[in-house]
Amino acid sequence: MQKKIYLAGPDVFLSNARDILGQKADMVRAAGFIPLCPGDLEVPPSDTKKGLGLAISAINEGMMRDADAVIANLTPFRGVAADVGTSFELGFMCALGKVVYGYTNVETDHFKRCADFYGGALTRSPDGRIRGPDGLSIEDFDMVDNLMLDGGIESRGGIFVVGNASEDALYTDMQAFAECLRLMASRYAS
Amino acid sequence: MQKKIYLAGPDVFLSNARDILGQKADMVRAAGFIPLCPGDLEVPPSDTKKGLGLAISAINEGMMRDADAVIANLTPFRGVAADVGTSFELGFMCALGKVVYGYTNVETDHFKRCADFYGGALTRSPDGRIRGPDGLSIEDFDMVDNLMLDGGIESRGGIFVVGNASEDALYTDMQAFAECLRLMASRYAS
Repeated sequence: MQKKIYLAGPDVFLSNARDILGQKADMVRAAGFIPLCPGDLEVPPSDTKKGLGLAISAINEGMMRDADAVIANLTPFRGVAADVGTSFELGFMCALGKVVYGYTNVETDHFKRCADFYGGALTRSPDGRIRGPDGLSIEDFDMVDNLMLDGGIESRGGIFVVGNASEDALYTDMQAFAECLRLMASRYAS
Repeated sequence: MQKKIYLAGPDVFLSNARDILGQKADMVRAAGFIPLCPGDLEVPPSDTKKGLGLAISAINEGMMRDADAVIANLTPFRGVAADVGTSFELGFMCALGKVVYGYTNVETDHFKRCADFYGGALTRSPDGRIRGPDGLSIEDFDMVDNLMLDGGIESRGGIFVVGNASEDALYTDMQAFAECLRLMASRYAS
C-alpha cells in the first residue's frame, strides 16, 4: 500500500506555485509515494472571502488526516521564522501521530537569524537568557527553528534537513526536499 | 470537574515572563479553570543545549495532551505573523480535538500587515492574486492571520479575539486575553 505524503509549505504563495508543487509531486511519485498537495482539490464557491479561506482550511485539514506523513517546507518566510500556516500543519500532523519530516533552504540557525534580526544588539539578562533590545529572549538550543518545531520532528524519529540554497532560489531549490524524500523512502523501506 | 486550559504564546520570551504568566494563571483560576503554563514544570537536566530544547518540547506536548482547551496568544511576533511555536501548538490542539481559542493584541489584519511589510508595493498578477515585489502572494481572506490559524479556530467553534494594545504593551496587555477567557467560560457554562 503506497503511503501518502502531504506537502506542507509556503510554496503555495509562489508565482509559479503550480510548477513547483507539480515538480515536487513528480519527485514524490518517483520515490514511490502518493503526493497530497494543498491546491489539488477544487475549493467550493463562497459568498465571502472568509468563507473561501475557511473552505481551504477544511480541505487542507482533510488532506492531512488522509496522509500518512508530511514533508514540511520550514524555510523562513517573510521574516526570521518558518511560515505560520506550515507550523500549524506540522503541529497538526505531530498530534495525529503521522510521520513528520521537515526541511529548510536557509542554513543559518534560529539563534543566528534572531541575532541578525536585532542587528546583533543582544544582552544577557540576570536569568542567563540572551535577549534582544525589546527584552524578548532568544532560544539558544542549537535548533533550526522554535523548539516546538524541531522537537516535534525529532521526538518522532523524523529529520529536519538543513539545506543552503542561493538567495534567489529559497523557495524553488529542491535539494533539501529531495534529501527529505530520500530519508523518508529509506525509513519506509526498512 | 474543572477544565484545564493550556496558555500558549510567546509570553515565555518576555523579560517578565513569570509575572505575566502568573497574572494570566490567576485570571484563569478566577474564571474557574486550571491553568497549564509552559515553564511550570521543571526541565530535567541535559548535557546539550539541544537536549534541553527537546525536553521542553516534550513537556509542552504533555501539557497540551493533559489540557482540555487552549488560549493561544497569536499576537505578531518578530515580524508580520504569529509566533511559530504557538502556531505549532494551535495546530497540535486542533488535531487533538481540544477547545481552541486565540487572540491577538494587534488590530491590523493579515493582509494589511503583509502589505505594510512590502511597503505597499503590491501588484495583482494575471491569476488574480495580490503579490509583493518578491512574487509571493498575500492571502486576502479577511482573516487575522494565515487561514490555517483562523480556520482551525473558527471551524471548531472557537473565537479569535482581536484586541488593540498600545505598541509598548503588545505582549502584556490583558484585555483580549480576558475576553477569550470570558467567552470560553460562557461556552463551558452553557
